[in-house]
Amino acid sequence: MIHTHQTAPTQFIEANGIRFAYRRFGKLDGVPLVFNQHFTGTMDHWDPAVTDGFAREREVILFNNAGVSSSSGEVPTRIEKMGTNAVAFIKALRLAKVDVLGFSIGGLVAQEIALQAPDLVRRLVLVGTGPRGGEGMATLTPEAQEIFGATYDEPDHLWLRVHFTKSEKSQAAGREFLRRFRLRSKNRDPEVNEKVAPAQIEAIGEWGAPTEKPFEYLKSIRQPTLVVNGGKDVIIYSVNSFILQQHLPDAQLILYPDANHGSQYQYPERFVQHVSLFLSEEEAQ
Amino acid sequence: MIHTHQTAPTQFIEANGIRFAYRRFGKLDGVPLVFNQHFTGTMDHWDPAVTDGFAREREVILFNNAGVSSSSGEVPTRIEKMGTNAVAFIKALRLAKVDVLGFSIGGLVAQEIALQAPDLVRRLVLVGTGPRGGEGMATLTPEAQEIFGATYDEPDHLWLRVHFTKSEKSQAAGREFLRRFRLRSKNRDPEVNEKVAPAQIEAIGEWGAPTEKPFEYLKSIRQPTLVVNGGKDVIIYSVNSFILQQHLPDAQLILYPDANHGSQYQYPERFVQHVSLFLSEEEAQ
Repeated sequence: MIHTHQTAPTQFIEANGIRFAYRRFGKLDGVPLVFNQHFTGTMDHWDPAVTDGFAREREVILFNNAGVSSSSGEVPTRIEKMGTNAVAFIKALRLAKVDVLGFSIGGLVAQEIALQAPDLVRRLVLVGTGPRGGEGMATLTPEAQEIFGATYDEPDHLWLRVHFTKSEKSQAAGREFLRRFRLRSKNRDPEVNEKVAPAQIEAIGEWGAPTEKPFEYLKSIRQPTLVVNGGKDVIIYSVNSFILQQHLPDAQLILYPDANHGSQYQYPERFVQHVSLFLSEEEAQ
Repeated sequence: MIHTHQTAPTQFIEANGIRFAYRRFGKLDGVPLVFNQHFTGTMDHWDPAVTDGFAREREVILFNNAGVSSSSGEVPTRIEKMGTNAVAFIKALRLAKVDVLGFSIGGLVAQEIALQAPDLVRRLVLVGTGPRGGEGMATLTPEAQEIFGATYDEPDHLWLRVHFTKSEKSQAAGREFLRRFRLRSKNRDPEVNEKVAPAQIEAIGEWGAPTEKPFEYLKSIRQPTLVVNGGKDVIIYSVNSFILQQHLPDAQLILYPDANHGSQYQYPERFVQHVSLFLSEEEAQ
């Protein structure tokens, strides 16, 4: 049976004393693409238009990092430790080479994976994210504080504000996204417990705190990297994507119009096309 | 006969009292793509890997604006006037709707075309260019002054410094570019006369001079726009591409790694793919 985002069973594997929940599906061809999720998100917060879009051409691996939803353990308060756990998870699957995609805090973890296990990572896709000491990253941005602090008629509607702009077009795309990400009806991940958000916020704050020459470390990430974001990201400001491109040795940047933090859910087909082009580029070209 | 970059004859058409030299070739399907050339460049300074790449799917129109090479008239000292001349040229061809691509000073002209004749322009591609009052645009940048002021063993080698970075990979791509752009052996355009550079520099300086709220005008460019540049452009600094994306109402940005002003010549296949995707996007998506 060929699985999809909707049908892939949740599997488990032990590493570093953690029982990691994961799902894998898609075409068994080439290098798998490992997804690292955003703040308080589970495997069910990915957009099937994106994951199934990639699965047509390559294997997709979703997982919950330590302490998140169906994975055991505790959420570390340092991004480095999250990276270490992610590397342990990937190695436990006996994968020798993967492409790594990270969204938001998952993009910070993806950078750590590349830094800690450079030989494991072929290419990197950093979505809606930023560098150490990036602009407005020492705390949640004022906009993020307001958005995450507000109450919503339906809890899911939070994501209309996090991932989309206020424009009519973007909000309409947001409603389509919510419909898609609720399509999986069986064996959904449990929502994260109340310890996840504070630990992740502490980790992001430590990562984002201003330091001297904060971007120097990016020189050590030698993998070809694609940086993607909306041009109007108010959760991790878009300028941080520009900074990533400017300081990574081999990075391409794509910013989408009228799009906030979740630009890849506003333009899922375009995103899958751009990332697929990037992942299949000749090394020489 | 189906023409290509190498074989398309130079044709002429009168408008605004100017005899415009142009070439058109490619698949007669949909909206033609009109190219606006860089500082002191002629129709022969385009890369056949790019123009023929587009010509597989659409009609390509190259031309020399007033006073440049095989076109008659004088180079105006204002970008607005260059825009007016370009609009007159396009209308003289009795085209009702075009896509407009502009590179460097050609990107400034492309913005003027969209501002002066919004109904004529479907989509805009701005390559290695910037906004009015952009960063380091009031004069040639120090790097540009050095590069254009230096002498070269072969005149063409100027373009290795203008369009490419100093890295080995980029310089190798540059030599490939020089080989390609010399492939057309018959009926090449004459090099521009000595009045072109000073007039174009004056026009760029006026456009680039700092003003209050310099980027307000970009709100009037409503066309979907793709902004492309190298991440290390020293001729028109890359940050100006970011500024364009941030201030245009509907713009997507792509920055390429280890690339200077002529990133589209370093990655011609990638560039053609990205621009083709953009030009064929559903309006809704």
